[in-house]
Amino acid sequence: MPEPLKVGLAGLGTVGVSVVRLLEQGRAKLLARSGRAIEIVAVSARSRSKKRDVDLKKFRWFADPVALASDPSIDVFVELMGGAGDPAKRAVETALASGKPVVTANKALLARHGQKLAALAERNKVALNFEASVGGGIPIIKTLREGLNGDAFTRIYGILNGTCNYILSRMEQDRLAFDEILRDAQRLGYAEADPSFDVEGYDTAQKLSILASLAFGTKLDPNAIYVEGISSITLADLDAADELGYRVKLLGVAVKTEGGIEQRVHPTMVPKESAIAQVMGVTNAVTVDANGLAPITLVGPGAGGMATASAVVSDLADIASGVRTPPFGRPAARMTAMRKAPMQHHEGGYYIRLLARDRPGSAATIARRLAQQNISLESIVQRHEVGQGVQPGRSGKPVPVIMITYATSEDAVHKALAAVRRDRVISGRPQVIRIEKN
Amino acid sequence: MPEPLKVGLAGLGTVGVSVVRLLEQGRAKLLARSGRAIEIVAVSARSRSKKRDVDLKKFRWFADPVALASDPSIDVFVELMGGAGDPAKRAVETALASGKPVVTANKALLARHGQKLAALAERNKVALNFEASVGGGIPIIKTLREGLNGDAFTRIYGILNGTCNYILSRMEQDRLAFDEILRDAQRLGYAEADPSFDVEGYDTAQKLSILASLAFGTKLDPNAIYVEGISSITLADLDAADELGYRVKLLGVAVKTEGGIEQRVHPTMVPKESAIAQVMGVTNAVTVDANGLAPITLVGPGAGGMATASAVVSDLADIASGVRTPPFGRPAARMTAMRKAPMQHHEGGYYIRLLARDRPGSAATIARRLAQQNISLESIVQRHEVGQGVQPGRSGKPVPVIMITYATSEDAVHKALAAVRRDRVISGRPQVIRIEKN
Repeated sequence: MPEPLKVGLAGLGTVGVSVVRLLEQGRAKLLARSGRAIEIVAVSARSRSKKRDVDLKKFRWFADPVALASDPSIDVFVELMGGAGDPAKRAVETALASGKPVVTANKALLARHGQKLAALAERNKVALNFEASVGGGIPIIKTLREGLNGDAFTRIYGILNGTCNYILSRMEQDRLAFDEILRDAQRLGYAEADPSFDVEGYDTAQKLSILASLAFGTKLDPNAIYVEGISSITLADLDAADELGYRVKLLGVAVKTEGGIEQRVHPTMVPKESAIAQVMGVTNAVTVDANGLAPITLVGPGAGGMATASAVVSDLADIASGVRTPPFGRPAARMTAMRKAPMQHHEGGYYIRLLARDRPGSAATIARRLAQQNISLESIVQRHEVGQGVQPGRSGKPVPVIMITYATSEDAVHKALAAVRRDRVISGRPQVIRIEKN
Repeated sequence: MPEPLKVGLAGLGTVGVSVVRLLEQGRAKLLARSGRAIEIVAVSARSRSKKRDVDLKKFRWFADPVALASDPSIDVFVELMGGAGDPAKRAVETALASGKPVVTANKALLARHGQKLAALAERNKVALNFEASVGGGIPIIKTLREGLNGDAFTRIYGILNGTCNYILSRMEQDRLAFDEILRDAQRLGYAEADPSFDVEGYDTAQKLSILASLAFGTKLDPNAIYVEGISSITLADLDAADELGYRVKLLGVAVKTEGGIEQRVHPTMVPKESAIAQVMGVTNAVTVDANGLAPITLVGPGAGGMATASAVVSDLADIASGVRTPPFGRPAARMTAMRKAPMQHHEGGYYIRLLARDRPGSAATIARRLAQQNISLESIVQRHEVGQGVQPGRSGKPVPVIMITYATSEDAVHKALAAVRRDRVISGRPQVIRIEKN
């Protein structure tokens, strides 16, 4: 029987504590699978005295995670501290440089420094595993890295942030506004006190950059991503989407286009009968399209201590079994530069909701401005409030107009709406939501 | 640069030809991923003269697949002939015994001899990969074998046969009877001339036995599976399901119960809003439940040359990368005996549709027989045809009664319905469909 795999674990939040528990519970099964036991021998965290629901006495304590990372008593370093900077960065670098494989859930670190860390891992011939960094308990990293090797990917997209999906799902179900649901989500622990990292799409963007790199063999570039959050989504949008056969989801999308790789995070209308539209609450989902193949979708828990810990343990089991593949599927030196497709060239359908001033000619002006940009409409709904006893065009109140365009370009939509605003035929800012077809 | 991985391929049907094509197209990408090229060097098939859309001239031809399997010119043997017996069995055994890794799509062979073949592969320290045997292009084998190592699985279930799902989906959409859609499916190539292997559930059962073994670490036992096909499903059942908030799918289900592992294949009512209910047409889906985790669902193309070939190529890429794990996740010697939970102990909700004779007392008799078995009803719908101008209980025509039970046992349902039939208060055989909640 080989020696147990000795683990040093830095970071004892919800996920870290769940890893301690899962390794305990799964001892026999893990041994059967890998032929080698997996044992935590040392831990590190910011506070030693914090009350945690597991017994840490049997582990050596390190105040300094960087010291733990290179300690001779451990075979593998698990980084669950988070953050793109130190100490996470230095601890991971130190472990890899000391020839120790690393398991991390740190999407920020990978999005920013993934390329360099992968190269460092390869030079030292050790694994760098990060299943827990994207999609919690969904094995999407392994699937992209090892599972779909034959496929020529054309698009990858998904619901990568549970907080946003929870908020949008509850807005739809409870018919409440974004702010109200957000407050509730904060109370229930589904949203942070400062929710902007989640609701403005940055968390999704970091995860998307990791998936795009794995899918397309490109270098990571989170700054090449167009990012737009969900805080401007209203109940009126969700209702209109429902009526038109769509649901609104915050998606991260990476697509291979003629102009390069288009990466974007934004609220998106998806057809109601699509697999991704069924994903409600904190659940995550990722869909992969490949040339000549029907799409493959993975759905599962996107966050939560146990789901994320399960991914960490799975990565450890691979290390115990001696499985090692290049961190991003191909050697870091062979990852190609990300040729960024600019967002203004994005092509697709659009949902546009605007408030037309209720006077003769408004509708005609809007129609003319869209036509000037060669935008054709699949549908248009203009709704006067019923039962007011006032004739259309006379109430003085702005009238909601909802339009779905056929495929057009981002540029055309922006130009048309800028012209409409200059014409002063609408009130306020138009709402624009991109449509993603499956 | 290491030597290319030299492949011997036996079986040149749709999948085999697609493998030839995919390896050609994906050459550069596969090299980048594995650091090693993958090249077919020799092939074998029943007919050499059959017209195929790929150029086979550059490959050595073997009339005998068993001779190919041990030929020194190949590093790995790919078996795409099918069938649980020879030549597939002998060829795979020969390759493994010669120390050559094997990739196969042969579910029948694995369901019948998986245990022995896994032991043989381990003794010879070579891989036995079979991603293509279940769920076509969905990476479910790898996910169970390597991806969810930390999880204590409690249930695995899925839509594993594209033909059945295609038929059920089209019955619902086109409102046509089973026989009509089956004929159409045969014409379109979605069903075989002899469809019984698919529609009677045997194909699903073979696949389920593989998944159950991977999920629960048990020895394969396809004979321990309760099997029931879809040929008795009528439009009336689909309509009733729809009305009650369900859809009917042919599922393979393996559940850990106190009595052992329950394995069953049967038409199943699933809640309409569940992920699995959205899966239409030839698409497959597998859901995995684990202790303390939200379910994980994988959805994708279940069959088709390219999807299956993609799985084969993925298995080859793992071999090229030097990844080798025990075929069924744990060493064959550590796979535990399958303790079979008998079907009569199955517990769950049931849908029961029967034709009550239209005379006073029928309903009361049925209710009494169910009550005698402690079966409680969640809902009951009894429908007299409208506008016939005849009073209930007087038309002489049998009346459809549809019942949904709360959780009860298979045994109780059978006993109650046997009693009802003896009472002669119904016409014909009652229809029974099990309900699976997510």
